[in-house]
Order: sequence, then structure tokens, then C-alpha cells
Amino acid sequence: MVKSTIKDVAQLAGVSLKTVSRVINKEPFVRQATIEKVSKAIEELGYQPNLAARNLRSGKSYALGLVYDNPNPYYIIDMQQGALNVCRDMGYGLQIHPCDAAQDNIAEELVDLYRDADLSGLILAPPMSERADIIKVLRRNDIQYVGIVSGTAEDPALTPCVHVDDRKAAYNITKHLLSLGHTHIAFFWGEEIHKSSPERFHGYEDALREEGITLDPSLIFDGAYSFESGIENAQKLLQLPDTPTALFCSNDEIAAGALTVFTERGLQVPHDIALAGFENSPFSRHSSPPLTTAEQSTIEIAAAATRLLIAGMRPHTIESENELVTEFSPTLIIRQSTCPVDGR
Amino acid sequence: MVKSTIKDVAQLAGVSLKTVSRVINKEPFVRQATIEKVSKAIEELGYQPNLAARNLRSGKSYALGLVYDNPNPYYIIDMQQGALNVCRDMGYGLQIHPCDAAQDNIAEELVDLYRDADLSGLILAPPMSERADIIKVLRRNDIQYVGIVSGTAEDPALTPCVHVDDRKAAYNITKHLLSLGHTHIAFFWGEEIHKSSPERFHGYEDALREEGITLDPSLIFDGAYSFESGIENAQKLLQLPDTPTALFCSNDEIAAGALTVFTERGLQVPHDIALAGFENSPFSRHSSPPLTTAEQSTIEIAAAATRLLIAGMRPHTIESENELVTEFSPTLIIRQSTCPVDGR
Repeated sequence: MVKSTIKDVAQLAGVSLKTVSRVINKEPFVRQATIEKVSKAIEELGYQPNLAARNLRSGKSYALGLVYDNPNPYYIIDMQQGALNVCRDMGYGLQIHPCDAAQDNIAEELVDLYRDADLSGLILAPPMSERADIIKVLRRNDIQYVGIVSGTAEDPALTPCVHVDDRKAAYNITKHLLSLGHTHIAFFWGEEIHKSSPERFHGYEDALREEGITLDPSLIFDGAYSFESGIENAQKLLQLPDTPTALFCSNDEIAAGALTVFTERGLQVPHDIALAGFENSPFSRHSSPPLTTAEQSTIEIAAAATRLLIAGMRPHTIESENELVTEFSPTLIIRQSTCPVDGR
Repeated sequence: MVKSTIKDVAQLAGVSLKTVSRVINKEPFVRQATIEKVSKAIEELGYQPNLAARNLRSGKSYALGLVYDNPNPYYIIDMQQGALNVCRDMGYGLQIHPCDAAQDNIAEELVDLYRDADLSGLILAPPMSERADIIKVLRRNDIQYVGIVSGTAEDPALTPCVHVDDRKAAYNITKHLLSLGHTHIAFFWGEEIHKSSPERFHGYEDALREEGITLDPSLIFDGAYSFESGIENAQKLLQLPDTPTALFCSNDEIAAGALTVFTERGLQVPHDIALAGFENSPFSRHSSPPLTTAEQSTIEIAAAATRLLIAGMRPHTIESENELVTEFSPTLIIRQSTCPVDGR
């Protein structure tokens, strides 16, 4: 098959090359009728604009960088998928940049990366997106970026970003456990460096406080967003003189680790201890019993962030502000790992 | 901090700009003493060559594309990590391209991708790497690529590639089960479109044949490399009049699905049925009991493929052919999910 060129499109649509180019690049002030004519010709000919050629013309690259530091493959793959869905629609490539947020010169590394790889913009996953020190360096270097941030408050030091309301979702999970009669509820933290960890903890705190329950520090365990952290803290939990009737883990991998320990020790979930996770990862669906959790639509969140980034760089590609969703609330999913305290 | 330039490096090393550039680009015929002098200056100044500038000079992009179609996040993340390790060393960016191998025009899509994103080369994961029809189109379009292929035979239609000896590894797992006294061993397939599936099946076949055991078709189940496939086939397996004493699943996710069914039905692994997986994924370590499996060093495999690709494009960057590893053999890992048949 001979590939169609921009000339074929111009000829079929009966317009100039420049007009076709303006339609392809979604430039402003092109008449609707012209856009339709050109779009029809593009479709008929199966014409695909060549990004490399576009780069040469515009002197700009058409690749975005996705920057993350997270040990959870399911989360990463969903994040990549969401960003890619929008990149493909908008004619961008996606470079991936896993990195170590604990590294001293992380901000400078991101600046070098942006320049060396000639990227158009950066999509920052937590925790990089939640660090004002990093954002400050990016701004000073005129770097286009967008962040994904846990919380709801518009922190001017972090914008532009999309927000995920982890606190409310954690509140809802804790309310669910309370509604089942549990009052002695343990909490396993994720890494403090991820803002989602304190947000989820505050949600747990909010719900208990609302019921007039005093927080019991012996039921609250520092940790990380990993299976291993769940194992370690569950072992500690079972050494308490008085085992709680419910456990809320900051993510599903932690909960899967805790579940393994409970099963090994002959404890039945949910009858001996109710268990909830967070994120609705495959762990939560594949475990036995499946876990009560909060659905976090990572694909949609990453897609929304990518859309917001491109809108900032090329405002004319966005038809209305309503296209830009910037607030996400994970929703409660009740499964077999939680039951009433008197069902024990 | 003011960033050092190539001029600073030239000045400190007492050589011309052109010489610094030749050292950075690892061009041939530069004297060892000169390389050392320039390298020392680069290190002292903390100079980092700018890839974007390099692209402009050479008219070539410095990004590779990683192309895959696989539902397993752990496998994908390891594949990405291996490719990135080498890309970073060699000054390349990495774009990711998940795709649908079942799509009709997949080869043409890869050609468009390569050109539109202005990539230097493609790293193909299975099954794209194992399809001569796709490779033929890439070759016809002068596209630089490398593949990861299950098997050992040098198929000229697929080179250049690195090989993974799945057949031998599956033979070793089956031999392990036979050595424990099992003779009634079931097999769960992955997707046939991945060459690793028939390779793993042939390894199972080889080991049984060697012991003079006739294959029992009722013990062999078609499937896919997924948890769900393991669940489905385990349910069928338990409907057989005579349950086998051992089950070999083509990967760990299948085995995790089967394990869930066995546990739900009150069967004890390994005492009621021995169970082996493949890949040494986190599933195999986190399941209860942990699974006997084969260690597949996906990170190293992807790194070796990436090195081979870059060596093909820039032969002077490789110091000796010995650097290029192209054969990998997954090794047997024995864990608690397998035990002697008479230990039942």
C-alpha cells in the first residue's frame, strides 16, 4: 500500500497544504467547515501525520516523560496505560523514567532528563509531584509538568495537578468497619514520603473521632506500601495482648501480606479479624477471601493528568474546560473480607 | 551551580572540541591516553552531554521503543527495567509501546511508530519478536530492531535476537516432579501465540517421554498466561475421575489461580497435589505455600537484548563480543509446593 501524503489530503480536500497542516496541529481560527472537509479527506486516505517531520517543522519534540518512584507494578502499568491513552490520541510518544525520590539531587536530575531527552513535558507521579522543592526547581527551569497529588486542597506550590481524595476514601472504609460494629480497628501505614499515607491515616482518624473513639497508638503501625510490610506488621499485631477485631491496611499489598500471616496462624478472615485494603489491585480480587477496598481509577487519573499537561502546552487542543477532570474520589468496594463484629 | 559545557571539558583536557565529541560518541580510532584524559575532565567537571544537542548534530534520535503485548505487569516492569538500565548507560531514552499482537496490521503500525516517533531502534518482546511476518516488514523498511525469542535454534528469519531456553527449563521442572515419584502430571498451557507456550509444553513432553511415560491428553489443558485461566482449568481438572498427583502450570499466575481453587476445595498443596509454576514472579513467593518454579531473569534478558540492538547500530560502543550474552536458561527453584508422591 502506498502511504498517503499531506499533499494527497490537500488535493482531495481542495485546500492548501498550509490549511491541512493547521487542521492537523489544531491551530485556532480554522473554520469548522474546513476542519470537517480536511478530516474527511484524512480519514478517506488513511493519512497519518508524521511526528518526526512535525518535530523538525516546529522545532519541538513530541514526547512526554512519565516520572515515578513506586514499587507496585500494577499501579505503574495502569499509570502508563492512562498516560499512553492520551499521548496516542494527541500524537505524543511516552518515555518512562522510574527514579529514586530519596536521591539528593532528584530535581536537577529531572531538569537534565527533560533537556537531554528533549521532552515536551513531564507527568509526575507521587511522591515527586507532592514535593514543593522539586516543583520549584522545575518552574525555575521553565519545565512543563503536571502532577498527581493526594488531597483536595489547591496548594499553589504544587499546581498544575490532579487531586485524588484518599482521605475521604479512607474515611469511607473506616465508616464501613464502624457500621459493622468494629471499634477496635488497627491501621497499617504506607511510606510517609507518599502524601497518600498521611491522607489515608487522617481519613481513618476522622471516622474514629466522629464516633467519639479515642485513637489507640498501639493499634497504629508505621510501614511501607508492600507485601513484606504487611507480613511484618501483622506479626507484631498478633503479639498484642488484645487482638483488634478489624484491620485497615493502607493498600492491598499490605493487606495481602497481613492475610498470609493470619492464614498461617489459623485466624479466619473476616470472622476472627475483618480486613480492608485500598486501591482495588488484583491482589484484592485474587486473595481468599477477596478484600474490601477502595477503587482507585489509576488509568483515568493518569489520563486526566496527561490531558491537563497537554492543555497547558497547547490550549487550542481542548474544546472546553469541562474536558479537564482534576478531582478523583476512590469509591468503597465491599467484599468478603469484612463482616459484622457480632458475626464472629 | 553553573553547568559545564563541552568547551570546559576540551579546555581542561587540553584537546579539541572534536576530540571530546569523538570520545563522548565512542567513535573508533581515539587513542587510549586521550580517552582517559577526556574522561577524567568529564568526571572532574561533572559534565553531562546533552542528548538533544547530540540529536541535532547527528540528525538521529536517541530514543528506543520497547514493544510488548503481555498481560503480566511483573514481566513488563522487569522488561522495562532491563531495557532502561542499558538505555541510561548508553544515553538513550526509552519509549514504551504496548500493542495488540492479534491486530491485523501490527507490522505496519510498528513501521509508522518507528518513523513518527523518530526512534533509533525497536526492542521486541514476544510474541512480536517471534513472528517472521512482522520481522520481514521491519527488515524491508530498514528498521533497526532486536527480539527476545523463546527457544535455542538460530532462526535466520528472526535474528538478531536473544534466546530464552524455556524448553530446557520446563524439562527440568518436569524431571523434578518425576524424581519425586510423580507420573500422573497434568499440564496447563499459556497462550499458543507466545512461542514460550509450546516450548514449555515440549519440555514437559521431553521429560515424560524420556521416562517412557505416554502422554495422557486428558491431563493437558489449553489456556492463557493468567490467574483466571488457572482457576478455570483447575475446576475442570477436579472433575476428572482420577485427580493427578502433580500439576505443572506454564506460569506462576496460572499456578496461583489453580492454588486458589485447590485451597477452596480443601485440597492441600503439596500433599494432595504437587504444584509447579514458571517465572519466579512475586506470586510464586507470596503464595501459601510458596511455589516451585523456574527463575526467569527478565531484567537481564531485556538488558542483553538492548545491548545487542545498540551494538548493531553503533558497533564501536562494544569492547568485545563477549559482552553480548544472547542465550538464557531459566533455572529450577524448588519450594514447598512440591513433595514426594509417597509423602502424601
